[in-house]
Amino acid sequence: MNYPGNIKKTYKSSINYKNRGMDLEEIINEACKYYVEKDIAVIYKKPTPIGIVDVDYSNMTIKKGYFKEPSTLDYNGIYKGKYVEFDAKECHSTTSFPLSNIHEHQIKHLTKIIKHGGIGFLIISMNSNYYIFKGTDLLEFINNNSRKSIPYNIIEEKGIKILYNYNIGLDYIKGVDTLLKELN
Amino acid sequence: MNYPGNIKKTYKSSINYKNRGMDLEEIINEACKYYVEKDIAVIYKKPTPIGIVDVDYSNMTIKKGYFKEPSTLDYNGIYKGKYVEFDAKECHSTTSFPLSNIHEHQIKHLTKIIKHGGIGFLIISMNSNYYIFKGTDLLEFINNNSRKSIPYNIIEEKGIKILYNYNIGLDYIKGVDTLLKELN
Repeated sequence: MNYPGNIKKTYKSSINYKNRGMDLEEIINEACKYYVEKDIAVIYKKPTPIGIVDVDYSNMTIKKGYFKEPSTLDYNGIYKGKYVEFDAKECHSTTSFPLSNIHEHQIKHLTKIIKHGGIGFLIISMNSNYYIFKGTDLLEFINNNSRKSIPYNIIEEKGIKILYNYNIGLDYIKGVDTLLKELN
Repeated sequence: MNYPGNIKKTYKSSINYKNRGMDLEEIINEACKYYVEKDIAVIYKKPTPIGIVDVDYSNMTIKKGYFKEPSTLDYNGIYKGKYVEFDAKECHSTTSFPLSNIHEHQIKHLTKIIKHGGIGFLIISMNSNYYIFKGTDLLEFINNNSRKSIPYNIIEEKGIKILYNYNIGLDYIKGVDTLLKELN
């Protein structure tokens, strides 16, 4: 389905991240695209869940809609035969990662994914570093703490550091390899 | 995020499938919900991809949007440690299933999923029957035929018949079990 070119273009230019530094989702999407192209992994960002209230059927455009709260994590797909699911979290605090960043139904979902043999994690951007923070570590922290945030030193200690690569984007699959090695 | 209750309710009642018989997606969603609740599988329908043109930031409602063409299949998740992805297709012809139902990038995507060790298939509703039609059979047919549709007898022969269950919905996971057994 096509939307008139000029409107589409206006929207696109308004989300041109190049002009405002690196957006976490943008550099993850870049890597996902690279991995699909090079046949390394098949991982996509899920579309944002939208509730549609009103549609103009004459040209199939949405006239009214609202954003729904996601009940799963943002990215999922397959890597080396494994089900992979994760969420991207930009953390602006330098001292700790607030758990309010993650909805309760996302925690439930993550628990199920891990139970069924999938690989679940967060990609956290914090203090100009990028980490894969394992779902198992996240659940362990939540279950054994009453704290409302994860101190940065725990993220540094348990997290798997991943790096931005100019040609790939945020090259997180190397961190997933480390995670898979730990599991075996 | 909440949308005023009355508008939400109006929209919901307009998609009350109970009044017009069984909609394929509806009975698959029912089963997905059942499988998640009973901890059998974690499979969800992906949100419909929407391009957002205009947002009212005062109440975070979408004022203009358009439907994007999906480049992956509609459902994905994990079952018995395996990555699973499929699409639901209602076929109104009684004699053959038109391949125009599947976009070219969906075929490419399916090919990748299978290559990476995932389970990919279609759920086809045809002649009041429901079938799991394996991705491998679909790709084989496409690669070895110039035909633009799959004759019903091939769907009957190669498809794995699945049944509607009043308490579960379309109980497709039994068909996935058959498929997994064939793979081993």
